[in-house]
Amino acid sequence: MTRQIEITELVLRDAHQSLMATRMAMEDMIPVCEDLDNAGYWSIECWGGATYDSCIRFLNEDPWERLRTFKKLMPKTPLQMLLRGQNILGYRHYGDDVVEHFVEKAAANGMDVFRIFDALNDPRNLRTAVNAVRKTGKHAQGCICYTISPVHTIGAFVDLADQLMEMGCQSICIKDMAALLKPQPAYELVKGIKAQCGKETLVHVHTHATTGVTLVSLMKAIEAGADIVDTAVSSMSLGPGHNPTESLVEMLEGTGYTTRVDMERIHRVNEYFRKIRNNYKKYLTDFQGAETDIFKSQIPGGMLSNMESQLKQQGAGDKVQEVLLEVPVVRKASGYPPLVTPTSQIVGTQAVFNVLMGEWKAMSGEFADLMLGYYGATLGAKEEKVQQIAAEKTKKQVITCRPADLIPNEFDKLRGEALALEGANGSDEDVLTYAMFPQVAPKFFRTRHEGPKNPSKEAPAPAAKTAAPGDKPAATQPGQLSAPITYAVTVNGHSHKVTVAPAA
Amino acid sequence: MTRQIEITELVLRDAHQSLMATRMAMEDMIPVCEDLDNAGYWSIECWGGATYDSCIRFLNEDPWERLRTFKKLMPKTPLQMLLRGQNILGYRHYGDDVVEHFVEKAAANGMDVFRIFDALNDPRNLRTAVNAVRKTGKHAQGCICYTISPVHTIGAFVDLADQLMEMGCQSICIKDMAALLKPQPAYELVKGIKAQCGKETLVHVHTHATTGVTLVSLMKAIEAGADIVDTAVSSMSLGPGHNPTESLVEMLEGTGYTTRVDMERIHRVNEYFRKIRNNYKKYLTDFQGAETDIFKSQIPGGMLSNMESQLKQQGAGDKVQEVLLEVPVVRKASGYPPLVTPTSQIVGTQAVFNVLMGEWKAMSGEFADLMLGYYGATLGAKEEKVQQIAAEKTKKQVITCRPADLIPNEFDKLRGEALALEGANGSDEDVLTYAMFPQVAPKFFRTRHEGPKNPSKEAPAPAAKTAAPGDKPAATQPGQLSAPITYAVTVNGHSHKVTVAPAA
Repeated sequence: MTRQIEITELVLRDAHQSLMATRMAMEDMIPVCEDLDNAGYWSIECWGGATYDSCIRFLNEDPWERLRTFKKLMPKTPLQMLLRGQNILGYRHYGDDVVEHFVEKAAANGMDVFRIFDALNDPRNLRTAVNAVRKTGKHAQGCICYTISPVHTIGAFVDLADQLMEMGCQSICIKDMAALLKPQPAYELVKGIKAQCGKETLVHVHTHATTGVTLVSLMKAIEAGADIVDTAVSSMSLGPGHNPTESLVEMLEGTGYTTRVDMERIHRVNEYFRKIRNNYKKYLTDFQGAETDIFKSQIPGGMLSNMESQLKQQGAGDKVQEVLLEVPVVRKASGYPPLVTPTSQIVGTQAVFNVLMGEWKAMSGEFADLMLGYYGATLGAKEEKVQQIAAEKTKKQVITCRPADLIPNEFDKLRGEALALEGANGSDEDVLTYAMFPQVAPKFFRTRHEGPKNPSKEAPAPAAKTAAPGDKPAATQPGQLSAPITYAVTVNGHSHKVTVAPAA
Repeated sequence: MTRQIEITELVLRDAHQSLMATRMAMEDMIPVCEDLDNAGYWSIECWGGATYDSCIRFLNEDPWERLRTFKKLMPKTPLQMLLRGQNILGYRHYGDDVVEHFVEKAAANGMDVFRIFDALNDPRNLRTAVNAVRKTGKHAQGCICYTISPVHTIGAFVDLADQLMEMGCQSICIKDMAALLKPQPAYELVKGIKAQCGKETLVHVHTHATTGVTLVSLMKAIEAGADIVDTAVSSMSLGPGHNPTESLVEMLEGTGYTTRVDMERIHRVNEYFRKIRNNYKKYLTDFQGAETDIFKSQIPGGMLSNMESQLKQQGAGDKVQEVLLEVPVVRKASGYPPLVTPTSQIVGTQAVFNVLMGEWKAMSGEFADLMLGYYGATLGAKEEKVQQIAAEKTKKQVITCRPADLIPNEFDKLRGEALALEGANGSDEDVLTYAMFPQVAPKFFRTRHEGPKNPSKEAPAPAAKTAAPGDKPAATQPGQLSAPITYAVTVNGHSHKVTVAPAA
């Protein structure tokens, strides 16, 4: 009795996004494409997430050209991308027509598997994207963003999976971006999904390695029936990245679970990146160990350092412990959002505000939007008292509809603006680039003719180890992450200058 | 149905031996002893292995004083050491009386659990030490050194465990120093030992993290009935070190297996070492990722780099692939020794010789001793042809007896030599120091009065990231690792100068 486990290779997208600030240039990926394409992966994740942003912001590289090149070099293995539901690859909710155009163009340019998620796990924020993918005939995968809270039970996650399958998803991804998924919940979650949605339901497990425990979780997920798991070749693995592909394969030896990957090819890919990663030293994460504090604090590492730096800027570095205790209060009030970008930053900043100025005395625009429903629905109920304060401060209504229902179609308007820009080439792809990154696109269009820049070959520059900051979207949309805002607040006679900035 | 899993903490011994060349000074361990002693560990490994050598060679610290200090600061939790069987903590076989004196003194100074191994897994090399430990009333743990070869079946390992229990061991350690133990063999091995030796037999699993797969192996070992596992706090874990203590504990959440460790105390210990490790940067291993090549080559990383550097010194850097193919030939000829120090170095060097000069044309004294039985018996049969060549080259006989049977009692003679040294204090402990490290002890005795040196507080020195080289033992004993030997060999008209040195 053996069962074949499929593997998605992450080295071309999430691995370098997690380990080297999404900086890997296309020219450094091209030499391994043939080996990757012939290595027997279920899919190769190579696009989406922060790569689009990084391409135009740092690499002077057209992300659509990157996608077409991948398709040309890897014609056999399905290409996979990460799509932020109604946010597409940007930082606000878009009109449905923009989402539809994006999916259509991605499919036409070579994308095969669309992994779609929403930071709040609100299925309505996935619906337009899922429908659009189904229309293209490509594979629509719906995500459960895994988190831990009193309301995030196995049953609640299984229900979410059920809704995603009902919606038309062809597989379910358990997306564990903070490495919180422990072995026993992994086992129960996969078992639960298979029991509820049918055992033929494809279950795909995505974990990061941060806490050191998730390779065990993959083992238990496989024992429970998971079909596909995500890994990255070992020289581009671990720390804030993922579990090593080779370790996953070796782990299964003799267990009755097999894989079909070609270890000779994977070995070559691994040796290649072992050398390449050294060229990106200035972007490489310092940290390759296990970060287990999150199990104690329930607060992701990136969020913690962000809060600490906010506190230090306010001369309140001694308040870290108070803020740590305030985070659960804020999270409960806002209905227990998963703590991922952008919610981790929104919740963290509000916890800082509450400690520095008193609970709910000051409120960021983003936190108010979160409370009022402009990011979507949370699994837990929101505290009415705090919701009222948010409504009063912002003069905005509570909404319960799908947030994008309030956004009119906007592609034609964006097209007009985009194509007026110097260097825009008239394509829908350029319109999408402008739609998602209106601040960055103009410069990219102007400089595109200079061709891609490889940051690993530039002269040494100051270290830039954090991920790309969010773009500044147009200011009129709900649910947006806006530019830094500075508040001047006086509490008990002490004046505080508080700045809220998009998460790193 | 829950079962309590016990944990041995490695941070005070194997963790810093694996990650920072055994350089941690006693003063940097003292502040955490109280937390460690009260954290609920089954034992705390804190002595033996390379720490004794490092104390006198690099730290000007009396290892016996270190042990007494540990005992004073950690009176509740059993202290554990790693003992190299008939080699004690040195690099040759000793007379039985030296082994007995050592064990007696270690017990008297505070040691509770003696983990005893032999690089060849020859039980006869453990017998004297095990008997001596039993005589003191302390805990004797016998090791299976885990390796992969055609003769190292689960059945063969289980037989070895059985022999160790028959001999009087009170627990069995599965010692996986090269991180080769995969989940399924881990499961089968523990199951096999419990079935053969009785389910009350204590099984203790020691793995390194190098290949990225062994936390899963610990999970499967626990599922199979393992009683105790080895870990190190997370800031001193992974890479060539061990699995993180916190990850192990969190891994078990909800599984029905529990632990009794105090996570608040472990958190404090971890935070402490997170800071301390930065002081040892010049000794810290570069590598914290997963090294999966060993699964392909079956050759440990340290052995590979050693062979590569030998080849480069001979201007034969292009012969690496040939040598990799020769290693299995040499290993087979010598009866499939586990590839650990010193056998990894002996086998690797012989593979280099065979490629550079033709098979068995040149032979190191150590390889000849291995072939002739002077290190003990191997699980596989030795190739007679190669054994004959070894006998002819060295004018030595094949032996089949326990190697130490050929070594007369020597403690009194060593006592005379030791106590004549300047600064020797007349104690048996000093005699043992001299017995194990005759080249280093004289200087240590002379400088001991200057007190311990903390290498993390010295001015920056050239990087020294490799482990301490072996001491040069007296030249008349069999089975020794001697000083570097240089051979001048001419093959096909090309002159080669080949140097064999003790493994790093």
